[in-house]
Amino acid sequence: MSADHASRRRALRVLLVERELDALLVTDLIDIRYLTGFTGSNAALLVSAADGDDEAHTVICTDGRYLTQVGEQVPDLRSVIARSSATQLILEFGTGSARWGFASDVVTVDERARWDGLDVSVRFVPLTGLVEQLRAVKDEHEIGLLREACAVADRALADLIAAGGLRPGRTEKEVARDLEWRMFEHGADGISFETIVAAGANSAVPHHRPTAAVLADGDFVKLDFGAQIGGYHSDMTRTYVLGRAADWQRELYELVLRAQQAGRDALAPGVDCAAVDAAARSVIAEAGYADLFLHGLGHGVGLEIHEAPGIGASATGTLVAGAAVTVEPGVYFSGRGGVRIEDTLVVRERTPELLTLTDKTLTVV
Amino acid sequence: MSADHASRRRALRVLLVERELDALLVTDLIDIRYLTGFTGSNAALLVSAADGDDEAHTVICTDGRYLTQVGEQVPDLRSVIARSSATQLILEFGTGSARWGFASDVVTVDERARWDGLDVSVRFVPLTGLVEQLRAVKDEHEIGLLREACAVADRALADLIAAGGLRPGRTEKEVARDLEWRMFEHGADGISFETIVAAGANSAVPHHRPTAAVLADGDFVKLDFGAQIGGYHSDMTRTYVLGRAADWQRELYELVLRAQQAGRDALAPGVDCAAVDAAARSVIAEAGYADLFLHGLGHGVGLEIHEAPGIGASATGTLVAGAAVTVEPGVYFSGRGGVRIEDTLVVRERTPELLTLTDKTLTVV
Repeated sequence: MSADHASRRRALRVLLVERELDALLVTDLIDIRYLTGFTGSNAALLVSAADGDDEAHTVICTDGRYLTQVGEQVPDLRSVIARSSATQLILEFGTGSARWGFASDVVTVDERARWDGLDVSVRFVPLTGLVEQLRAVKDEHEIGLLREACAVADRALADLIAAGGLRPGRTEKEVARDLEWRMFEHGADGISFETIVAAGANSAVPHHRPTAAVLADGDFVKLDFGAQIGGYHSDMTRTYVLGRAADWQRELYELVLRAQQAGRDALAPGVDCAAVDAAARSVIAEAGYADLFLHGLGHGVGLEIHEAPGIGASATGTLVAGAAVTVEPGVYFSGRGGVRIEDTLVVRERTPELLTLTDKTLTVV
Repeated sequence: MSADHASRRRALRVLLVERELDALLVTDLIDIRYLTGFTGSNAALLVSAADGDDEAHTVICTDGRYLTQVGEQVPDLRSVIARSSATQLILEFGTGSARWGFASDVVTVDERARWDGLDVSVRFVPLTGLVEQLRAVKDEHEIGLLREACAVADRALADLIAAGGLRPGRTEKEVARDLEWRMFEHGADGISFETIVAAGANSAVPHHRPTAAVLADGDFVKLDFGAQIGGYHSDMTRTYVLGRAADWQRELYELVLRAQQAGRDALAPGVDCAAVDAAARSVIAEAGYADLFLHGLGHGVGLEIHEAPGIGASATGTLVAGAAVTVEPGVYFSGRGGVRIEDTLVVRERTPELLTLTDKTLTVV
């Protein structure tokens, strides 16, 4: 199955017409990749609201380095070659008093000021989140890539454990590099973010960077990592215990696992994102640890590792079928250790589809 | 030797006074790291122009995740904890009709609009490149980190070659991962950018991403890669020949090597950046290949892999002692193969200091 960029642009046109815009000037490179498949490092895209199936007035602009690439990746759109992509599209197509939307949370003050200096009468309308709103609902092609990215992470972790890669005496950094290496061996195009390996007291730091700290018997070891496939990111956290698990560790682990299950059970179309967070958070709060769950429950994942929808206590959105999200509660005992358990899932009409399949029962390695 | 952030802030104050500004509101995280040492992912910094050695009116703001970290990394400045860092600094310290500079090439239209909605009378003055201008001149602490980052890359490449890691039958991706792995083994905190390994005809693509293409006898293999140490990036390109070198390969290699030497020889304080580019470019032009050298000669390198000064045909700057730059001419025969040779160097009063020490004589592996 190949990505249907044209149908994404059709969906965008519906949003433009609703907002009485003549076009959207897209400058965010991830949005451009989503709408066209182009992966270069400089581009702007003008999506005309009135275009029909011929898309005669929808144009991508990039610079000379990508002359060949843009033809190969975007064969279905007209392309213009120029260094200042957005400026060029404005000069070339900014006729009359058209209303063009732009992402005001992406465009800088300087870039916007340059547009005012151009001799055109286009009215630029600030907008946020328009393409991200589309990106928040994944099509089956995207879900296929996410599924593959999650499978790569599952396999890499299984290999690491099977090879005895998680053992006392190794450093956090060594384990992180080992795990990343195994993701590449399983076909990852890249890693999703710098792998977190946090042992012992470090496991109580939510976003710990791996250090030369040595794994020791009795430690919690928290691994938070992911693989990229075709631009799509997986995201998974597992927490293990080395050697033998103390009672407090078992209790803490079981608590977080129950909270994670409660969050997963709450995932359904039409549910408020804040309610999903609350479902998991209340389990932790009832145990008396509300203050030790320091972050939101999860986030959307796709072409970016963090994207819409956010799932937190103050989130305002509502889940829709096709949203790909993480569910990742954590409880952190400062100076002692912490547990986080995270899956990537797709919201479906009935049960959510679990993409990260690594077992979550407490594992002592 | 430790970084002297306070002296960097003193140098910045001189620039603020020259521009009749009362303060600079710094929002770029790299600039904040340069000026304070803070490495978190959310912060704003207010540098007061009038501050003396006590720096009573220079304040950093970050959110609750970094409460401990900001105290450890920035013990010499007052800190404020809030989620919207820039907004908080404006609300708390934006008294009277002060003139505050901000980086208009970093701040988005939305962020700037939020400031206008705050009940303060600060006048915000758009500026670009003020901190980057300071960052372009490295101090000895920074040069020490760059030297170390370059040494890590040198060692990793030497290991790769010694282990026979560059051989027919391996894929570009395998070689790239192998080289990256070796950089981590030698202590890299991270890689500078996604490693380029380009074999055969792919070597003619300036910024080729490694693929499953298999290295073959007689191929050019171009490796462009770097290591990070303490936030500082190394950048080096070497091009090898596998098995045996054809005459056209030897000629092409020697040409690029001569151009690279000419560029390096031109590096001196007071020289126009465009003249450095011209020194190398003219060698290639005289050989009749002006059209096949597709990019600028080099760029500054430091906390970012690309920073000031730019060294290209249309560059406007002038070199100063302490600038760390790359010199990287390339000639690319489309569909056949290309050569790029790149070093990282520091401009010194007399001869430039070469940081990437790997040999550049044509090597057949």
